[in-house]
Amino acid sequence: MPASIQPENAAAPRDRNIVYAGDLVLLSGADRKPAIVRMQSGQEYQTHHGVLAHDSVIGRCWGESVQTHLGFTYTILPPSLDEMVRDVHRATQIIYPKEIGYMLMKMNIGPGTHVLEAGTGSGGLTLALARMVQPDGRVYSYEARADIQATAMRNLERVGLDAYVTFKVRDAEDGFDEQGLDAVILDVREPWLLLQQTHTALRGGGFFCSLVPTVNQVGVLLRNLELRSFGFTEVEELLLRPYKAVAARLRPVDRMIAHTGYLIFARALLPGSSISASAVDGSDEDTDDVLGDL
Amino acid sequence: MPASIQPENAAAPRDRNIVYAGDLVLLSGADRKPAIVRMQSGQEYQTHHGVLAHDSVIGRCWGESVQTHLGFTYTILPPSLDEMVRDVHRATQIIYPKEIGYMLMKMNIGPGTHVLEAGTGSGGLTLALARMVQPDGRVYSYEARADIQATAMRNLERVGLDAYVTFKVRDAEDGFDEQGLDAVILDVREPWLLLQQTHTALRGGGFFCSLVPTVNQVGVLLRNLELRSFGFTEVEELLLRPYKAVAARLRPVDRMIAHTGYLIFARALLPGSSISASAVDGSDEDTDDVLGDL
Amino acid sequence: MPASIQPENAAAPRDRNIVYAGDLVLLSGADRKPAIVRMQSGQEYQTHHGVLAHDSVIGRCWGESVQTHLGFTYTILPPSLDEMVRDVHRATQIIYPKEIGYMLMKMNIGPGTHVLEAGTGSGGLTLALARMVQPDGRVYSYEARADIQATAMRNLERVGLDAYVTFKVRDAEDGFDEQGLDAVILDVREPWLLLQQTHTALRGGGFFCSLVPTVNQVGVLLRNLELRSFGFTEVEELLLRPYKAVAARLRPVDRMIAHTGYLIFARALLPGSSISASAVDGSDEDTDDVLGDL
Amino acid sequence: MPASIQPENAAAPRDRNIVYAGDLVLLSGADRKPAIVRMQSGQEYQTHHGVLAHDSVIGRCWGESVQTHLGFTYTILPPSLDEMVRDVHRATQIIYPKEIGYMLMKMNIGPGTHVLEAGTGSGGLTLALARMVQPDGRVYSYEARADIQATAMRNLERVGLDAYVTFKVRDAEDGFDEQGLDAVILDVREPWLLLQQTHTALRGGGFFCSLVPTVNQVGVLLRNLELRSFGFTEVEELLLRPYKAVAARLRPVDRMIAHTGYLIFARALLPGSSISASAVDGSDEDTDDVLGDL
Repeated sequence: MPASIQPENAAAPRDRNIVYAGDLVLLSGADRKPAIVRMQSGQEYQTHHGVLAHDSVIGRCWGESVQTHLGFTYTILPPSLDEMVRDVHRATQIIYPKEIGYMLMKMNIGPGTHVLEAGTGSGGLTLALARMVQPDGRVYSYEARADIQATAMRNLERVGLDAYVTFKVRDAEDGFDEQGLDAVILDVREPWLLLQQTHTALRGGGFFCSLVPTVNQVGVLLRNLELRSFGFTEVEELLLRPYKAVAARLRPVDRMIAHTGYLIFARALLPGSSISASAVDGSDEDTDDVLGDL
Repeated sequence: MPASIQPENAAAPRDRNIVYAGDLVLLSGADRKPAIVRMQSGQEYQTHHGVLAHDSVIGRCWGESVQTHLGFTYTILPPSLDEMVRDVHRATQIIYPKEIGYMLMKMNIGPGTHVLEAGTGSGGLTLALARMVQPDGRVYSYEARADIQATAMRNLERVGLDAYVTFKVRDAEDGFDEQGLDAVILDVREPWLLLQQTHTALRGGGFFCSLVPTVNQVGVLLRNLELRSFGFTEVEELLLRPYKAVAARLRPVDRMIAHTGYLIFARALLPGSSISASAVDGSDEDTDDVLGDL
Repeated sequence: MPASIQPENAAAPRDRNIVYAGDLVLLSGADRKPAIVRMQSGQEYQTHHGVLAHDSVIGRCWGESVQTHLGFTYTILPPSLDEMVRDVHRATQIIYPKEIGYMLMKMNIGPGTHVLEAGTGSGGLTLALARMVQPDGRVYSYEARADIQATAMRNLERVGLDAYVTFKVRDAEDGFDEQGLDAVILDVREPWLLLQQTHTALRGGGFFCSLVPTVNQVGVLLRNLELRSFGFTEVEELLLRPYKAVAARLRPVDRMIAHTGYLIFARALLPGSSISASAVDGSDEDTDDVLGDL
Repeated sequence: MPASIQPENAAAPRDRNIVYAGDLVLLSGADRKPAIVRMQSGQEYQTHHGVLAHDSVIGRCWGESVQTHLGFTYTILPPSLDEMVRDVHRATQIIYPKEIGYMLMKMNIGPGTHVLEAGTGSGGLTLALARMVQPDGRVYSYEARADIQATAMRNLERVGLDAYVTFKVRDAEDGFDEQGLDAVILDVREPWLLLQQTHTALRGGGFFCSLVPTVNQVGVLLRNLELRSFGFTEVEELLLRPYKAVAARLRPVDRMIAHTGYLIFARALLPGSSISASAVDGSDEDTDDVLGDL
């Protein structure tokens, strides 16, 4: 029933199986370092193994293979969001796709969501958020350093998602302009310094998330969340374990990433609301209060 | 700058901070078994600790707390997608939100995506997909058992997402109607039996995913993916480790879920395309071919 | 070449395949809650499924099965050290065998080692240490509460290992009697309070270990180890993931223990020695000094 | 009470705090690649940062630091068993200390144990077993390749533990000489081929262990263990997660070893014994029998 699948651009019926000029293409070769390239008639892409004319890709079918002038093979694939995030030019450490995907679920970020992030960094998370909130939602992205945000903007432009983002070069400690937001994500070193403006920007019950690398940061953040009328706090980490995908010798790979960061989720409560995670865990007594001043 | 945030329903300006009749509300009490309820004037919700009139919630602010007739407190929150998935009435085991979020990233499932799943099961994954593909995308959901799919449909109706899903009661082995799809997810016991119709339904380069509990299933699936013109195969697992969110005694919880399943991702290639993951790993020699017939 | 295997007790040649009176036997039934019992002629063991006369076990072969008077089957096995540790009567939380085994390796605890532990607790670790240091080594075990140590002593007597342990009822803060020890293990809530007496009790370069449940305790301990002339500090955790041992449906079990504690290892250095782990990691700069006072 | 600590060698009282000629010393410098060296008067050790005369170490205190002729500092430490295993000259992949420590606990390997291993490999496991079974136990180590076993023998001689091992150059498929053994460890590619001779060599109820890298090997081994009168089978894996030991920025290291192998433990039962792990798990039904021929 292919007729039920509407073309993304209704102006002219497009065959979803064909690569058109303007499409983003993942070129994946034997070296397994794929590149994401926007197809433009007349242009060339320089691989490690020869030149690939965009016109030798345009009009071909997705999933086909093409060859460089040196005879090396590349497969033409639509890029995943995971691949787009990993492909950003990096000015800073990016948040990994496994954490981003989990944030989408835990903060209900999807079509129509209004979400703020600080700081922009390389724009990997910005890109994923922009992909998900369209067409009616919006991403507000703050970054203190203009040069870093410029890199992020270019990363968004490359994949055609910049229209869904409002970029602001500003130290987040100077406050946010928005109110009534669905979600705020703090990807900064000292997220606890931004909790007051975060609470002001969020609508009641709105979603908070921060990702920090050290347990010390988790501790400071937890203490400040309680003081700033956040509740339902959760701390979690996600571990991704890849396997060698060989049927006859199936096993995990030798080495994996051991740590990308601790995820802290919370909800903005109205002052006076009384339920918090710490109340629930208050009966915990494996170590006593003498550690409280740690 | 709240003016920049557009109301979801343009017919009447809504205050994003207020609960309206018709809104889905997460009611979260001290027992931490939250419920998701759609507010309807005149109705009542029966908690474990007394009755809560919907009219005592409608018109209140998100993030506020309300009390049952017995004086127990519940906080009013917008539900996350994670919470909506966990809240479905279960006829079968659900896919966990951590895996769903990762699938969104790895298969670029978002606004505009056309995705097929088999089988529907309890509709937890269906619900998350429907949330993400709106307004222009679509979910096609196959299930052999009518009673199970009926439960899933009710789960989607409860949260107002059924309009984005085409449900079909059919044994997936009888084939799929769709073509040119962006992504197919097989959540069945023997996904290898459905690879031919999956390849036919996918557009070239389209995204494949399956989640299976045992290594034996992974092995059979890997062998069949290679035979059926799928490539770029990846096998991964995700582990979620929650912490006790207590600043003075921060530590992982005592017990965690050790296994939800192995995720297998692949891409539909056009016959003749030559790159596959197994070619890349072909030099692996930690065990030899005598194991190949395992 | 069985002749090369000497009987443990040279007084009378024993057949290593036969259960003798006085032997410790693991009785393992279908309910998989095995018990460790010392065989004594004329005695009976009361299972959940009937009575087992010790005389029906004595003289049988290890690995055989016997039946209770109700016809239920139990297999006769020599107990592992893991099983002996898990079988202690518990007055307190025990250290898990996976951590104990790793301590043996990291601290070179084996025949001839002189090792001190504080506190004794239920004696699970004490039991394992006593098993390993014989015949020439020794375990010194301190515990503030006499009633708890009495339980531990009985646990050691049950398995015949008490002769290798010197028990002392004393608050470890009052100091240790020993000097020149190979290793000290602190299994107390505030191990940092005992570092001075630990350093005095250890020989130069001696092994230190502590196991604590929270990251806060790890932080305080690390700071104090540096101040007290310990070096080569390591922090590690061990995760044990069991599988369902079914060939046709091999997969991890559904739930696992997520956390038993953080292991901190260090070495006693002579004052003036300059190498320490923190010097090596000093270039780390992912968060700055403002966090140092956490 | 240092008098209670007896010198290991009663011929002459030794001060446990002093390095003597003949002692094994771990020399640990700022580069953190420690070496294990046996001290011999008149000899020199060539570091990456200058020459260290053994006579500048002999007579010093354990835990002190010494300097090379270029002024670089090395700390004098007694080596741990973990460090000795990691320091073996490698002809093959070694078993990691975390797995060895766990084997000691699960198989009750300690003073007095008679244990067989096949194959010897580089002797890392052999070394640890020899350390633990002394003075009355014994290690029997089989290896098909004479050159590999020669390397292992030298590794044992270097640390003075060869007296506790009987080395045999033989293909383990030709059978074992021993009977009545406490434990057998198979570290070979196809352990299932050796189960009959393993059962013959073990005393009743004796401990079996094998470590294999792939799930396919686990599957074949499980099926054969059942056929060969082994029971109480367990499959487990151990993950070691190291942390950066910095109090102000405590967090896991970036990368960790994701996989060293699957541990399979079992017990030798007498034919006719009826309890087995698979019987207990027989009610498991998450996938059906059609997968049994995998």
